[in-house]
Amino acid sequence: MAVIGASNNLGKWGFSTLMSIRDGFKGKIYPVNNRRDDVLGLQSYQRVTDIPAEVDLAVFVIPAANIDEVMQDCVEKGVKAALIISAGFSETGEEGKILQDRVVKTAAKGGIRIVGPNCMGFWSAPSHLRAFMFPMSVLPGPLGFVSQGGNVGGAIVMAAYERGIGFDKYVSCGCTADIQIEDYIEHFGDDPNIKVILTYIEGLADGRRFIEKVRKVTTKKPVIAMKPGRTLAAAQAIASHSGALSGSDDVYEAAFKETGVIRVDSGGELLDVAMGFLTQPLPRNNSLAIITPGGSYGVICADACASLGLRVVSLSQETLDELDRLFPPRWSHGNPVDPAGDRNFISYLQAPPLLLELDEIGSLIYMGFGSFSSFASSLSFFERDETVGVFSSFLSGITGSEGFLQSMRSTVEEGDRAGLQAQLELALTALVSIMGSAEEEEVAQLRQMVSSLMDSGRIVISAEDFDQLAESMKHDRAYEAFQNLIINRMDDFLTALIVDWIERYGKPVVSTSFTETVPGLIGGIHYSYPSGERAALVLSKMARYREYLEKEGIWKEGEFDPFTFTLLGNHQ
Amino acid sequence: MAVIGASNNLGKWGFSTLMSIRDGFKGKIYPVNNRRDDVLGLQSYQRVTDIPAEVDLAVFVIPAANIDEVMQDCVEKGVKAALIISAGFSETGEEGKILQDRVVKTAAKGGIRIVGPNCMGFWSAPSHLRAFMFPMSVLPGPLGFVSQGGNVGGAIVMAAYERGIGFDKYVSCGCTADIQIEDYIEHFGDDPNIKVILTYIEGLADGRRFIEKVRKVTTKKPVIAMKPGRTLAAAQAIASHSGALSGSDDVYEAAFKETGVIRVDSGGELLDVAMGFLTQPLPRNNSLAIITPGGSYGVICADACASLGLRVVSLSQETLDELDRLFPPRWSHGNPVDPAGDRNFISYLQAPPLLLELDEIGSLIYMGFGSFSSFASSLSFFERDETVGVFSSFLSGITGSEGFLQSMRSTVEEGDRAGLQAQLELALTALVSIMGSAEEEEVAQLRQMVSSLMDSGRIVISAEDFDQLAESMKHDRAYEAFQNLIINRMDDFLTALIVDWIERYGKPVVSTSFTETVPGLIGGIHYSYPSGERAALVLSKMARYREYLEKEGIWKEGEFDPFTFTLLGNHQ
Repeated sequence: MAVIGASNNLGKWGFSTLMSIRDGFKGKIYPVNNRRDDVLGLQSYQRVTDIPAEVDLAVFVIPAANIDEVMQDCVEKGVKAALIISAGFSETGEEGKILQDRVVKTAAKGGIRIVGPNCMGFWSAPSHLRAFMFPMSVLPGPLGFVSQGGNVGGAIVMAAYERGIGFDKYVSCGCTADIQIEDYIEHFGDDPNIKVILTYIEGLADGRRFIEKVRKVTTKKPVIAMKPGRTLAAAQAIASHSGALSGSDDVYEAAFKETGVIRVDSGGELLDVAMGFLTQPLPRNNSLAIITPGGSYGVICADACASLGLRVVSLSQETLDELDRLFPPRWSHGNPVDPAGDRNFISYLQAPPLLLELDEIGSLIYMGFGSFSSFASSLSFFERDETVGVFSSFLSGITGSEGFLQSMRSTVEEGDRAGLQAQLELALTALVSIMGSAEEEEVAQLRQMVSSLMDSGRIVISAEDFDQLAESMKHDRAYEAFQNLIINRMDDFLTALIVDWIERYGKPVVSTSFTETVPGLIGGIHYSYPSGERAALVLSKMARYREYLEKEGIWKEGEFDPFTFTLLGNHQ
Repeated sequence: MAVIGASNNLGKWGFSTLMSIRDGFKGKIYPVNNRRDDVLGLQSYQRVTDIPAEVDLAVFVIPAANIDEVMQDCVEKGVKAALIISAGFSETGEEGKILQDRVVKTAAKGGIRIVGPNCMGFWSAPSHLRAFMFPMSVLPGPLGFVSQGGNVGGAIVMAAYERGIGFDKYVSCGCTADIQIEDYIEHFGDDPNIKVILTYIEGLADGRRFIEKVRKVTTKKPVIAMKPGRTLAAAQAIASHSGALSGSDDVYEAAFKETGVIRVDSGGELLDVAMGFLTQPLPRNNSLAIITPGGSYGVICADACASLGLRVVSLSQETLDELDRLFPPRWSHGNPVDPAGDRNFISYLQAPPLLLELDEIGSLIYMGFGSFSSFASSLSFFERDETVGVFSSFLSGITGSEGFLQSMRSTVEEGDRAGLQAQLELALTALVSIMGSAEEEEVAQLRQMVSSLMDSGRIVISAEDFDQLAESMKHDRAYEAFQNLIINRMDDFLTALIVDWIERYGKPVVSTSFTETVPGLIGGIHYSYPSGERAALVLSKMARYREYLEKEGIWKEGEFDPFTFTLLGNHQ
């Protein structure tokens, strides 16, 4: 790879681009710079033609005006592809467009394909290549993403990093002088490592070509698009930014609809919907149930669902009767299902299967995910207080032996993994039970639930956990360490439970927390949304995609595996 | 204060409610519980009438059916007010409504006013009272908030905590058996500690009464309302939740418009708009300029602004000429103003005043706030690498003395505060300069900028900073410590700069970062939004409020202080 314009000057893009490329890439890098012998410790060359090896890719970070000349060198050298990061082409107007056309024409002579110009570069997971204009955090993963905005694309890539999800390929495609957005999408469609495709579009050069190519992809995997430009102000900004003619928004809306492209309105939605496809099966119908620990959450979520074309179904008398047996008389007696402040958390864990087994319910929004762990964490607050011992005495109560902590201590000392696992099982049961008043029979059911999830290997005690406990015992902090262990396992337990329902019923179970904090992927397979509105949006987009597949004759109940696009699909 | 139903049982709300109240409240607390002598170490009483002191407030956490009886005791005792947390009243149907009416009637005999029932309690900053059903983090601050949803209200209060903003009063009003939402709002309107009022409404008992009371408040301070229930599904959920009749959404929309209540669609928007009023003056007109470090950000922001009725104004030839002198030829030549990858960050700091001084521009969205600090942080990454010394040699270059670090070291050793301040001034100048290629004259202008903000006291070196530097010098980590100091001061510098513009031009300058992370209030006076869309929404709501004040004859250019609702207003 040649980096044309590589620089030692911190104030130049040629510096930060080379910094980024060096970070992780295993192939050879040849800086090209007409003034220096070495750049950042790498032997540098005055011209591409001086490089003593074959060059697969030439990255340009030099002024636009000088690119055509160097591109001629690239043709002579037999370079295969070019990435032009530099700006100053069609986005600047007529003159820039002429320059751009000239560069494309020159490259074409040597069969060189061009990414850009006026872009931020690309990422390719297989070669761990971050050909970006500055170092940026990106994870490998199941997404493919082509963005006509480098900044917006970069922000989305970094937001995905924070969420714990990654990309097999990401391209900031800039002015798309040569390779078009639909070409990238077509390529992603053929790549088996890519499960879901994202795109940010400002304007298309050839709408008909886009439709032809993309409609072949959407029958294989979801394509989610963000497209601003509903207003004149945006259309004007687009013209000066990517040099694209954004055209009438109605035309785009119709094209997306025709091709089954899922349109979203923001970068956050782009990732939200992608996380939905990656963690949930496709909903079989548009009807859903909502279970909420708080009425107002349910109201807002139901409002969002109904506004987005999902049906918050009425529950049959039979179902109402079943829920009556679980919840106190004051529960909402309808959908959303709201136990109205019931303190029995075991019932809250028992309700979902009652709803998921109903044919008329295609998916479930299960609210309050984070609340459980917060509550679990707050126990440590209680323990510090006058109530010290409430939790440990409860543990002793259900283990039948006095001093649960002593027995845990000896288990760790003996290195008895199975014993510790059994104790964790008891502790999780105790933790959930203690969040309210539960009857003996319910506690027994809960313990069975925890036990079977442990057996399935979905809640694991790692060697690391074991070491930490042993270490903390040396410093007389065993209780604190054990408490942290079970609080962490609380999220694992809920995730395992939800994933179990998802797999057993083949239906989406979308959980929500209630903080503004954007959560990360849990255990590599579950994603909990910050609000019911966001969960509703994701389900509505997934439902619309299923409708598209139905229309195209691809989705047929019983024939199509609804787990196709999920990470769960990989695990099965 | 009496807590009726206070309990030692971890599984009861009477436990967590008492835990919450004890935390911070300075007054006397009397648990009332008919089975125990003491609760959480506090002397407990069998009946309210047994309490050997006057009782201002009785908090109920006992089953609904028992409340009327205890309320009679409260009347006998001369209790002044009641908070009924317990559910099981009008939200459960006809029977619950009868029970509720009976309790209200009993209370009325003693002139006892009721908050609730079926609510989560309230917070009052002056007495530091968190009468919540479980411990919840809340900060004192300039907001007043009444929520008909306890869970949603709690989530918003906790989200505000994360953002670093607080409440003078927060009430979860539940079924509003006695005190109505408009009563709380009226009260907040008269409270000089409250600058902005928030409300979450599911349904109103008497719309006309709401309109009459609230219209008197909106002419004094902004009232921001979230009201779900546009759909039938939500209306049904509302009926079973708060027992309210949500009524036609059109009626609410009209009532809000008539009374100048600002309607938003989510809890996040509620806080976003509140932060806008608290940190920005009211925009004098609906036209704005956008400055963006990336074209796509500008496109999306312009689209959002135009969709929300803001005008992304065309710039005059004169302004274009002025910006031409700042930016390279490839800049966008329009609004949004996009330097198109210009590496000179000093120009980016010089552009805003050119736009803010124009009468036709009512406000400015200034994008990329976080990018500066990220870039500053990434310097440490560069420093670890082959480029070590780039920054320190630059520092030495502009100080004119070799070894900036040595001179800093002796300044700290001598405890020379003024000397350190001068060195920080140089370092900040160096840091901004180094983010690109700047000319000598520009660096001098930048240094002048930093210097005047330092003189104004807006960027301060605290005694703590000083101590930390001294301490780190002992461990030979002076360079690292100094680097952290200037990176942290980078945010302070930008905040000081923006606040200076806001005050100088009396116009909103709304900054944005580009991460999904919800930011906190910076320096107690500035808030940077995560995206241009959110900034646009806030400005559009503020503009609409100004229009309302204009219509009511309250806003008159030159007469009304646009800083009225801001925290800046306090600082002036």
